[in-house]
Amino acid sequence: MSETLKNVNPNVSVDCVVFGFDNEKLNILLIEQKMANKEKVQFALPGDLIVDDEGLDDAANRVLSEITGISGVFLRQFKAFGDPNRVSDIKDLDWLKNYRQNPQARVITVAYLSLVKMDDFQPEASSFAERVFWQELDSLPSLAFDHNQILSEALDRLRDDFVNHRTGFELLPEMFTLGQIQKLYEIILGKELDKRNFRKKILKEKLVSATNQKQTGVLHKPAILYTLNHENI
Amino acid sequence: MSETLKNVNPNVSVDCVVFGFDNEKLNILLIEQKMANKEKVQFALPGDLIVDDEGLDDAANRVLSEITGISGVFLRQFKAFGDPNRVSDIKDLDWLKNYRQNPQARVITVAYLSLVKMDDFQPEASSFAERVFWQELDSLPSLAFDHNQILSEALDRLRDDFVNHRTGFELLPEMFTLGQIQKLYEIILGKELDKRNFRKKILKEKLVSATNQKQTGVLHKPAILYTLNHENI
Repeated sequence: MSETLKNVNPNVSVDCVVFGFDNEKLNILLIEQKMANKEKVQFALPGDLIVDDEGLDDAANRVLSEITGISGVFLRQFKAFGDPNRVSDIKDLDWLKNYRQNPQARVITVAYLSLVKMDDFQPEASSFAERVFWQELDSLPSLAFDHNQILSEALDRLRDDFVNHRTGFELLPEMFTLGQIQKLYEIILGKELDKRNFRKKILKEKLVSATNQKQTGVLHKPAILYTLNHENI
Repeated sequence: MSETLKNVNPNVSVDCVVFGFDNEKLNILLIEQKMANKEKVQFALPGDLIVDDEGLDDAANRVLSEITGISGVFLRQFKAFGDPNRVSDIKDLDWLKNYRQNPQARVITVAYLSLVKMDDFQPEASSFAERVFWQELDSLPSLAFDHNQILSEALDRLRDDFVNHRTGFELLPEMFTLGQIQKLYEIILGKELDKRNFRKKILKEKLVSATNQKQTGVLHKPAILYTLNHENI
């Protein structure tokens, strides 16, 4: 256990919301917590207390790596969660008794989010994770502590940053069809979009430019390939 | 001192960045800290440790009110600051020795921001503030701890939310001239805008609609009054 070795801050943790994109849907990186009582199962976001000589960004990267084996992800902070009743479920209290030196301490958590290509990362469980896995966002289980709320607010922020700052456009290949960029929008925003309105809007905003190339290897009429207009993004 | 009476969390504070709008420029609410050595002067954002049974939003409102007498402000959280070296200046270390029970404890601060009409609030210093005052943003002094950085990031967020979420448009009167809305943009964004381009853009985005009324009480040709198109905001 890292807590016995390091100068852990009992009051501040980090939690990581890592969204995984697989060209079809959004997934979320979850852990199954190790439980003293093996009959109980509890899922959670990867997170842990910070160590006293590290910054918050460093803590988020260390914790994600220690628990899930995933590193080299760009984690950005999005919100601190500090409801005094963040921990109220009996399962969560039991778990803290087994895995924290000060299980009664009030913990404020600083939440981070990231969006990655799912195939680029193969998580491996360690520390207090029994298992790490990608879960489809539309069939989420109940999570420990206030992690369902953290995830919900992370998703709002992901969508806001996608629309206003085009964060996530890097998931597109260098050249893509209008169908592909529409699909990206639909997956991130979680809803179907009208094809005609979508194309009109995206061309009007000059987000993309047509190249002189077309799709290859398709049976139907090949579509024109586009690139991002980086100056308008 | 509140710390001797309440169950204070030694590791977590809140800091409040309150921007004051006065139709001409942006101002920022600062305190002058009470110092044991009266010859030293140090300015800071209003902030203090949280109490263990209050949420972060409640803490921000309480702390702002206790130190500056200002309440009823909508404070929104924008970022947690947790650099292990947030406190390194000898003046700050001295101040903490006099005003904190655990001056050595590492403090992570959760920063809040707000934008208000300056005339609506008359701050009054109390607690460890010797003085509270509105300072013009373009002539900022050096602030305690990492408060200059917090303020700088608050300003980035204020501008981002203004452009992408129109947060701050409520500072406009119900009916206004295009000159007035341009002035609001210029004050918040901190730069002059080209009149012709600004008008073209704002009308194209359908942010405002012309009314059938005009300015009154002006010597020159009265300008048309506009209202916000709330469905496009």
